[in-house]
Amino acid sequence: MAKIAAILEDMFEDVEFTKPVKKFKNAGHEVTVVSIRSGRALTGKKKGTKVKVDLSLKNTSPDDFDALLIPGGYSPDKLRAHQNAVDFVKEFMTKNKPVFSICHGPQLLITAQVLEGRKITGWKSIIQDIKNAGAEFKDQEVVVDDNLVSSRNPGDIPAFVRESLKKLK
Amino acid sequence: MAKIAAILEDMFEDVEFTKPVKKFKNAGHEVTVVSIRSGRALTGKKKGTKVKVDLSLKNTSPDDFDALLIPGGYSPDKLRAHQNAVDFVKEFMTKNKPVFSICHGPQLLITAQVLEGRKITGWKSIIQDIKNAGAEFKDQEVVVDDNLVSSRNPGDIPAFVRESLKKLK
Repeated sequence: MAKIAAILEDMFEDVEFTKPVKKFKNAGHEVTVVSIRSGRALTGKKKGTKVKVDLSLKNTSPDDFDALLIPGGYSPDKLRAHQNAVDFVKEFMTKNKPVFSICHGPQLLITAQVLEGRKITGWKSIIQDIKNAGAEFKDQEVVVDDNLVSSRNPGDIPAFVRESLKKLK
Repeated sequence: MAKIAAILEDMFEDVEFTKPVKKFKNAGHEVTVVSIRSGRALTGKKKGTKVKVDLSLKNTSPDDFDALLIPGGYSPDKLRAHQNAVDFVKEFMTKNKPVFSICHGPQLLITAQVLEGRKITGWKSIIQDIKNAGAEFKDQEVVVDDNLVSSRNPGDIPAFVRESLKKLK
């Protein structure tokens, strides 16, 4: 069983959180929602899904987790404005722990400056940002580059979950 | 009197459209709202402001305008996924026409690949994207670099409008 941190803020793409999390839990893994502040519910962008925050970033550490999920929507844009969110994400990458990024998820990885020379995919609007960060953008439903698993959009979720589960013990 | 195109999509930052537009019109300039599709109203992110689209991108050209306004919020993220929006913005820059960019506005300029060597400011979440695009990010209320006027957030609007008006004849 792996401990997965899902880093999340308001306006997350609902199904990019709910669907992978359901599959991860069904496979026996534990998912903890980590955000800027705790003690409140976050709201999804399209469906208004309410998600309880389990831990604030200041009260947790990447050491407490085996893997990281970064759902898309506008949640990554909100998170990347906070240095502790950027530092949290950066440590998973530098310690080579599994990171699952979908849609706008790469925005957090760009601010963490960990994409130089990596292969990744993401939402079409951020392709130029991904390339400018020194990464190789690939237009595929899922890209696996060592610890980093990435997908483009909600339609890619089955492939995204399939490859992510392979990285969890 | 100058003809200004305001390029806009849903989830624009309300006041970054309404306040500059009011000031531009009060000064005798004409503002046309250009978007992906016409015949519908766009909705602001925070206040739900409704804005009628005057022209679709496919039915207009940068040749019809003297200057460009790019309000922020999540409107630029939506626009930059469309090649005709990117091409529209690019032409104002390559023809050295005044471009007024605030908040997330630089996202469109990044996808248009026109920021190499330019001085610009923008919303804090996109600082790394701006730097990776080859621009010099400046943390100031307004940055004027030749034809390009930029600001960071709604609090900067008075300085943004003041410097933008200086570029209009």
